[in-house]
Amino acid sequence: MSLPPGVTERDFNLALRQFELAVGREWVFTSDEDVALYRDAYSPFWNEPEDRVASAAVAPQSVEEVQAVVRAANEYRIPIYPISTGRNLGYGGSAPNLSGSVVLDLKRMNRVLEVDDRNHYAVVEPGVSYFDFYRHIQERGLKVWIDCPDPGWGSVIGNALDRGGGYTLGMYRNHFEAHCGIEVVLANGEVLRTGMGAMPGAKTWQQYRSGVGPYIDGLFSQSNFGVVTKMGFWLMPEPEAFRSGVVGVPRHADLVPLVDTLNYLENTGQMTGMPFLGSPVLSANMAGVDASPDTVSREPPLTLTASPEDFDAYTKRNKVPAWTVELRFYGAPEVVDAQWAAAKRRYAAAIPGATFTDLARYEMPLSEEQLQQVHKVAFGIPNLSIFSLGARSEMNPTPTSGHVWFSPIVPRTGEAVFEAQRVLSAAVADLDTPLIGLVALPSTFWTRAFIFIIGFPISHDVEANRKVRAAFEKVVRISAEHGWGEYRTAPAFQDLVMSTYSHGDHVLRRFNEALKDAVDPNGIISAGRYGIWPRHLRKP
Amino acid sequence: MSLPPGVTERDFNLALRQFELAVGREWVFTSDEDVALYRDAYSPFWNEPEDRVASAAVAPQSVEEVQAVVRAANEYRIPIYPISTGRNLGYGGSAPNLSGSVVLDLKRMNRVLEVDDRNHYAVVEPGVSYFDFYRHIQERGLKVWIDCPDPGWGSVIGNALDRGGGYTLGMYRNHFEAHCGIEVVLANGEVLRTGMGAMPGAKTWQQYRSGVGPYIDGLFSQSNFGVVTKMGFWLMPEPEAFRSGVVGVPRHADLVPLVDTLNYLENTGQMTGMPFLGSPVLSANMAGVDASPDTVSREPPLTLTASPEDFDAYTKRNKVPAWTVELRFYGAPEVVDAQWAAAKRRYAAAIPGATFTDLARYEMPLSEEQLQQVHKVAFGIPNLSIFSLGARSEMNPTPTSGHVWFSPIVPRTGEAVFEAQRVLSAAVADLDTPLIGLVALPSTFWTRAFIFIIGFPISHDVEANRKVRAAFEKVVRISAEHGWGEYRTAPAFQDLVMSTYSHGDHVLRRFNEALKDAVDPNGIISAGRYGIWPRHLRKP
Repeated sequence: MSLPPGVTERDFNLALRQFELAVGREWVFTSDEDVALYRDAYSPFWNEPEDRVASAAVAPQSVEEVQAVVRAANEYRIPIYPISTGRNLGYGGSAPNLSGSVVLDLKRMNRVLEVDDRNHYAVVEPGVSYFDFYRHIQERGLKVWIDCPDPGWGSVIGNALDRGGGYTLGMYRNHFEAHCGIEVVLANGEVLRTGMGAMPGAKTWQQYRSGVGPYIDGLFSQSNFGVVTKMGFWLMPEPEAFRSGVVGVPRHADLVPLVDTLNYLENTGQMTGMPFLGSPVLSANMAGVDASPDTVSREPPLTLTASPEDFDAYTKRNKVPAWTVELRFYGAPEVVDAQWAAAKRRYAAAIPGATFTDLARYEMPLSEEQLQQVHKVAFGIPNLSIFSLGARSEMNPTPTSGHVWFSPIVPRTGEAVFEAQRVLSAAVADLDTPLIGLVALPSTFWTRAFIFIIGFPISHDVEANRKVRAAFEKVVRISAEHGWGEYRTAPAFQDLVMSTYSHGDHVLRRFNEALKDAVDPNGIISAGRYGIWPRHLRKP
Repeated sequence: MSLPPGVTERDFNLALRQFELAVGREWVFTSDEDVALYRDAYSPFWNEPEDRVASAAVAPQSVEEVQAVVRAANEYRIPIYPISTGRNLGYGGSAPNLSGSVVLDLKRMNRVLEVDDRNHYAVVEPGVSYFDFYRHIQERGLKVWIDCPDPGWGSVIGNALDRGGGYTLGMYRNHFEAHCGIEVVLANGEVLRTGMGAMPGAKTWQQYRSGVGPYIDGLFSQSNFGVVTKMGFWLMPEPEAFRSGVVGVPRHADLVPLVDTLNYLENTGQMTGMPFLGSPVLSANMAGVDASPDTVSREPPLTLTASPEDFDAYTKRNKVPAWTVELRFYGAPEVVDAQWAAAKRRYAAAIPGATFTDLARYEMPLSEEQLQQVHKVAFGIPNLSIFSLGARSEMNPTPTSGHVWFSPIVPRTGEAVFEAQRVLSAAVADLDTPLIGLVALPSTFWTRAFIFIIGFPISHDVEANRKVRAAFEKVVRISAEHGWGEYRTAPAFQDLVMSTYSHGDHVLRRFNEALKDAVDPNGIISAGRYGIWPRHLRKP
């Protein structure tokens, strides 16, 4: 058994004894076999000394048990690392930033405490997965949808705190921003409720976010200021209908008005679903959706190094659009029809030669057959099919052991996309392993910003991982030089990424450190998370 | 000249000298005449010793000047109280929480730094009023709308930091939530940029809110953790059309499905404008919008003490709806038409006997004549017509000297509205001065919660104000007993309101105090704001 850094064996044993008293012996894990389960399966330091490993784990089942564990940790200065379901693969999984931390595993706190389908909200515990949440709602026949990310096994709270995104309406896709009200156990063991929850007997904890005085909820995301034990989330009532269609534009340069028109539609509230950018000119792995009918008679796809002129010649020869955007509409049947009609009218006016393809039109509830056809997450249905993309197949005979996500935020303009394509593809050009995900076109999880999501492959080969880490670090730096910051990253790169947010001699990091010292003076919670180290572990 | 508490005359003079060096002599105000301008014109302590008055004021014109002033204040421990335009009437105006504070008046920082009408955002300084902002956009012919509160002379930043609301789309009406990116001068004089702004050369400061690591922006609203010097705001692109219509429902009990259907429409994104609740049965002051055509032949309105049976008998006799809701739609012409059609269909299915009245339908831009007719704030046009409501007239021969707003958040259900009507009207029944604003029906500035906004009248009569304060305090307590918390209040009542958010032995207040001590150890900024007192002024 390894020890947490700076903790004596005696103190550690006394703390473990307190943990056992709090949660029961069977829920404190100290064997190598048990603790190994908390390793990051996608660790970029696999089998290297820098790999982040826990010393033990403890799994409480109630807020009171969390309080008891945190109090004991605070007394004996034991670093703890709360996880919810620990499925944050590609961003660190269940392994702590600081080796030797005790994982505070909240998987047993898996109750859906309330789902209200008149005001459309829910309250859940950290161990509730998207699958749990969905099943709870379906079993009761409630008429609300959840908004879930690609893998459905993750925690609703964990994903929100890591600021993940989903696939339904713009107002629900940013999972942290769709929350309302938090309960958190502070480092001293006290229970804090934010927003209206700070009023005993509050009636609007899940209806009005900010309460009175400073709105502190954001402090508990991507950080280490407390252990979140409950969160409220706003849900979408089941819409009457869904409709989707694809707009194609003929020229390379048309990406600029394509994006501008998309922004207009989303920012006026007229296109509420998640749009998907694509291109039939580039390969599928590079460019996502291709809804154009005839793919057989085409020439092989171009690469990102193709000139705009080559691009335009290719589209003419092959009679395909240069770029496409799939638009998705939710609402009453007559509303989604009018929205698609209005979008077509607006695109036709903005871009000569724009083409339009109707895709799906469903009225709810979906039939069993329709359920099998649809892009499930767009209907709030959790699943794990995303993992099939990386699985062994004829197309992919040697799958990687994992990946770390590089995910910079880029402005929502066509010009910015062109610049990012050029800069990012040049930055990774000398990497000899293929990347996972899209380099050519950004994703649209949020209405106001684009995000490129690029997976750097991880293996069990130390030398290969070393190269990948060097490439990852290089692309983070190049990205920062262009003003594109990551929104999220794995513990292995959190100090690096935080260091690129360096305005004013790193005043943001120092401000965060001052907050940390104030609310967790012994620095027990998630030391190092997002570059926030407690005083005794801070580098000068 | 009065002195700040605990500051020697010598230190105060040295600090004033530093202020003069920083901003120029003509922008440091110390005469009684000048300083009196910062009194709260609507103070509930008018001419009483508890009235909060400043000792001096200083008006910098740049971030660098703010830094110099804050550094000097920190050195000499001078309490400062930043205001933007100081128009927060009814919630405290420009007067500090702590008498003797130096007002840090940011009115000269009045530049609109950027308006982007492709990505629909702006960056402004604190002294920019809604009038300034609107004029800037109009003069340049930019195709974006602002979202403004009723009085247009307030500060865009000030209103957002106080968490005010406006009248256009749901996604813009919550002014703090519609912001993206903050620049703030900390108590030590350092400049912090939040979100993506913490990355030098950031390209998405106004496009992605939370940056990386904890999302700290909320700390700077309704608080005293820094001096905000810039903020980004998301704007709405000019929609093609606007449409509105009124739904009437026949029975008292129909308010319940009326609200449920409203929630459904808003939470699916199908009704994007601000709805207005009304009732032709109750008097105009009590019940807002009455769009029914014939008001002449009716009996005098009922009061809130009328039973549901009386209510229903009245509606039958007078052939009027019991309750109405005005719905407002923004978007393409075919979309707003379909949305209104879908809303009518849904209301007709939910509520037997529901009636529908078309109101306005405009295509943008509005003609000069239309501009004169419309509810201006619903089109993002700032104005001051709200003040005509309280002005001297034949109907209102003895207007009050001012008012303080009581504004509790109430659940978005018909049942909650009935309960609040009963409880709040009983709570104020023995008050002999008439209230300003609506007791019968809530406002809908935010999509998920109702808010009752009730003005308690202020006069220059000490005895009358004493009674009003007692009534205000009583209604705050009664409201808290029912789980309804205020979202905002004047300095005179901030300690009281904060004390109702008492969960866990006031752990929220103590948490805020710990943050305050960490980021402003000398407690110089806005001491006492929203119940957050610096250590040396904290009551045990």
